[in-house]
Amino acid sequence: MTDKRVTVSDAIFLAAESRESMMHVGALMPFSPPPDASPDYLRLLMRELRDAPPVSAPWNTKLKNPDFLSSPRQRWIDDQEFDLDYHVRRSGLPYPGGERELGILVSRLHSVQMDFHRPLWEVNFIEGLDGGRFAMYTKVHHSLIDGYTAMRVLSSSFTTDPEERDTPHFFLRERPTRHSAGEPVATFSGLFALVREQMDGTPMFWKAVGRLGKSLGGRGKHLAAPLQAPKTIFNCRVSRNRRFATQSYKMDRLKAVAKAANGTLNDVALALCGAALRRLLLDLDALPPEPLIAMLPVNLRPKNDPGGGNAVGAILASLATDIEDPVDSLQEIIASTKEAKRQLEGMPRSTILQYSALLLAPMSVQLATGTAGRVRPAFNVVISNVPGPKEHRYFRGAQLEAAYPLSIPVHGYGLNITLNSYAGTLNFGFIGCRDALPHLQRLAVFAGEALEQLEATHL
Amino acid sequence: MTDKRVTVSDAIFLAAESRESMMHVGALMPFSPPPDASPDYLRLLMRELRDAPPVSAPWNTKLKNPDFLSSPRQRWIDDQEFDLDYHVRRSGLPYPGGERELGILVSRLHSVQMDFHRPLWEVNFIEGLDGGRFAMYTKVHHSLIDGYTAMRVLSSSFTTDPEERDTPHFFLRERPTRHSAGEPVATFSGLFALVREQMDGTPMFWKAVGRLGKSLGGRGKHLAAPLQAPKTIFNCRVSRNRRFATQSYKMDRLKAVAKAANGTLNDVALALCGAALRRLLLDLDALPPEPLIAMLPVNLRPKNDPGGGNAVGAILASLATDIEDPVDSLQEIIASTKEAKRQLEGMPRSTILQYSALLLAPMSVQLATGTAGRVRPAFNVVISNVPGPKEHRYFRGAQLEAAYPLSIPVHGYGLNITLNSYAGTLNFGFIGCRDALPHLQRLAVFAGEALEQLEATHL
Repeated sequence: MTDKRVTVSDAIFLAAESRESMMHVGALMPFSPPPDASPDYLRLLMRELRDAPPVSAPWNTKLKNPDFLSSPRQRWIDDQEFDLDYHVRRSGLPYPGGERELGILVSRLHSVQMDFHRPLWEVNFIEGLDGGRFAMYTKVHHSLIDGYTAMRVLSSSFTTDPEERDTPHFFLRERPTRHSAGEPVATFSGLFALVREQMDGTPMFWKAVGRLGKSLGGRGKHLAAPLQAPKTIFNCRVSRNRRFATQSYKMDRLKAVAKAANGTLNDVALALCGAALRRLLLDLDALPPEPLIAMLPVNLRPKNDPGGGNAVGAILASLATDIEDPVDSLQEIIASTKEAKRQLEGMPRSTILQYSALLLAPMSVQLATGTAGRVRPAFNVVISNVPGPKEHRYFRGAQLEAAYPLSIPVHGYGLNITLNSYAGTLNFGFIGCRDALPHLQRLAVFAGEALEQLEATHL
Repeated sequence: MTDKRVTVSDAIFLAAESRESMMHVGALMPFSPPPDASPDYLRLLMRELRDAPPVSAPWNTKLKNPDFLSSPRQRWIDDQEFDLDYHVRRSGLPYPGGERELGILVSRLHSVQMDFHRPLWEVNFIEGLDGGRFAMYTKVHHSLIDGYTAMRVLSSSFTTDPEERDTPHFFLRERPTRHSAGEPVATFSGLFALVREQMDGTPMFWKAVGRLGKSLGGRGKHLAAPLQAPKTIFNCRVSRNRRFATQSYKMDRLKAVAKAANGTLNDVALALCGAALRRLLLDLDALPPEPLIAMLPVNLRPKNDPGGGNAVGAILASLATDIEDPVDSLQEIIASTKEAKRQLEGMPRSTILQYSALLLAPMSVQLATGTAGRVRPAFNVVISNVPGPKEHRYFRGAQLEAAYPLSIPVHGYGLNITLNSYAGTLNFGFIGCRDALPHLQRLAVFAGEALEQLEATHL
């Protein structure tokens, strides 16, 4: 039986939850069915699930005080009336079942706030994709599990063997220990938690932050001055609805460009995002003259490090949106990330954490004081890169085609881009506020065209 | 340009809104496509909509204070950034696209709270029903339009001519005057508004109600004593999720039974509901020994009455769930409704309103004081009968098969049954709290079996 206090890290995401800034993360995973799949492949799968053993912790635990999320006496308890049909769902797509219809459905599903009276996860099997394909959309509240661990847990319920059809679903396995050994968590939400943990939760501290916020409201320019990022149309108060767009590129293409330009794969990914943002904002006559600034969670641990503890830092990098020429723009980004990483290189781990906290402090203050989206942003957009499995994965014989992360837009930061590597591809998930970014879909299109343009330069 | 105060009646539904008791109503309408329909019939329809003229009032108006619904300064204003794609949607069903899959999707859609930052309506076109059929699910907040008017407005956007394909959609027409002449509004929500209007909104009145509620909390039995209805598993606090089930019967079958038993069509409908509830509760070992009591909104205006003003009353009738024999049970219901209606017959209109308000007062007090679902209920279930069109209706050549209403479960009253007559059929919409009624679907099945049983008795 479960009955345990929520951790500080869980509590942060519960306290931050609101109808507009919802603290759940997701993943969209399209699959190609096995050659021998019958038309009711998914229905049979559902039947298998209904006959499955009871779900494991934490998937069967819910909050004790669902109507007062930030209760100091908040606990995780067993859901005695666990309702599997609520958590495991089936959906269909309208004709013709293309990426467009899938994106619309997933945007809608991600816009619905979770029911805090139940275990905070859902899996949706989506049928009706062209060619008999289907997709899995998972949604987990960040207080239950972080996005990085969620991705690991999901991966573990898939297999590298297309013939293996018995691997238990993730909710039938115990969650691995949070942030345990192995690779560090280099995501926005990981950092978000980290920094808010650093900012000690005593009332005195929050009072001081409040005063800071008030002075910020009065003479915003003074505190905002050290921040380089210009305000954009998506650095605003967010509404409760989301738009989601995806794009996947072969890693080899990105690597070839990176090699030619003497930069990293991540630099090229940033260049695609920067070029797409530049075009979108230019089309809307809303491109600021100053370059947009991205915040990048980075893994600073050397290879073969035994692990343990945190080794995640944040760096700010220019997206060079002020430069029209794609090659010059990429070179500017490469220079910017190099310089940012050099800053951290000599630092001991504790200093890196402090330095990262400092970079993120303006955002934290804005979120804590409710000024986010009303004042100049600390940066424009978070771009995280989450490592995924290197080989193809299978689920009941169906091949996982891609895995697109859905992260958390918050007030002031109405766009989030998260990348996930998988089997020789890099998968981009663009998620934003529906109202701030009515043409968010174009980011995915423009990013693809930017890659073609870079390849065409033979740089 | 719209900028007008919300009416008292609108304000009531805004004030009553909460995440658990959501004040939106809906209708589910399956259609048979025209013989010449192409596979992208609905997609073409969407294209037609996007090229349509701007939507008319009130469909383009939103609340001025969406974050403080019961603001005394609440107003309806134009939505300057009206986003048609948000309001007109497409969905698909998973395989095999039967009534079950449709019911699950509509239950989910009806469980999502509306976004009060936008005009309070949605239309969802649902594809993937077997045989190329599709369905329309509409959702409207009761503050924007009442369910009865909504049904009239919807009907007016359909046509009796299968060849007529240009009738404008309801949101491209002005809403007719609320509660205007013609037939009276005999629905639960109509009554709900009426009674709360009667209960004068002055602070003094609500203070008195508050005191009443406190004494009720202390010694509930005393005030509850005059109420006959037993507490059941669904007379509880409701959760935020819904279940929805439907059933349609040929009017001729119901009329034949009514004639043989010397009762009304409505009596037979009540008998089906009563028999279904008896079986469901018996299966769950939760049938109270006392008969369940239904509250029925009734239209008391004689035929050919010129109309104007309200002529709606409420009566309470036994559902005879304590009687096993179906014929005896029907006879008991007939006697009960006769007696209830006789009470009202001689009364002038104003007295009927007062009498109805008195019947509903315990429910109103419970809802106002937050004791609903914690004390003995004023009655067990509301069963409304809303008249619909007598002839078949068509929409872009597709034949409307049925129209199932989705009404409002509230705390204390976790089940609502609303009937709608259409083209020689009576359509039942059962809607309830997902958690209180995990087997709600069985009500629809049991009601059908109860009808067969009554027919077999050759009474």
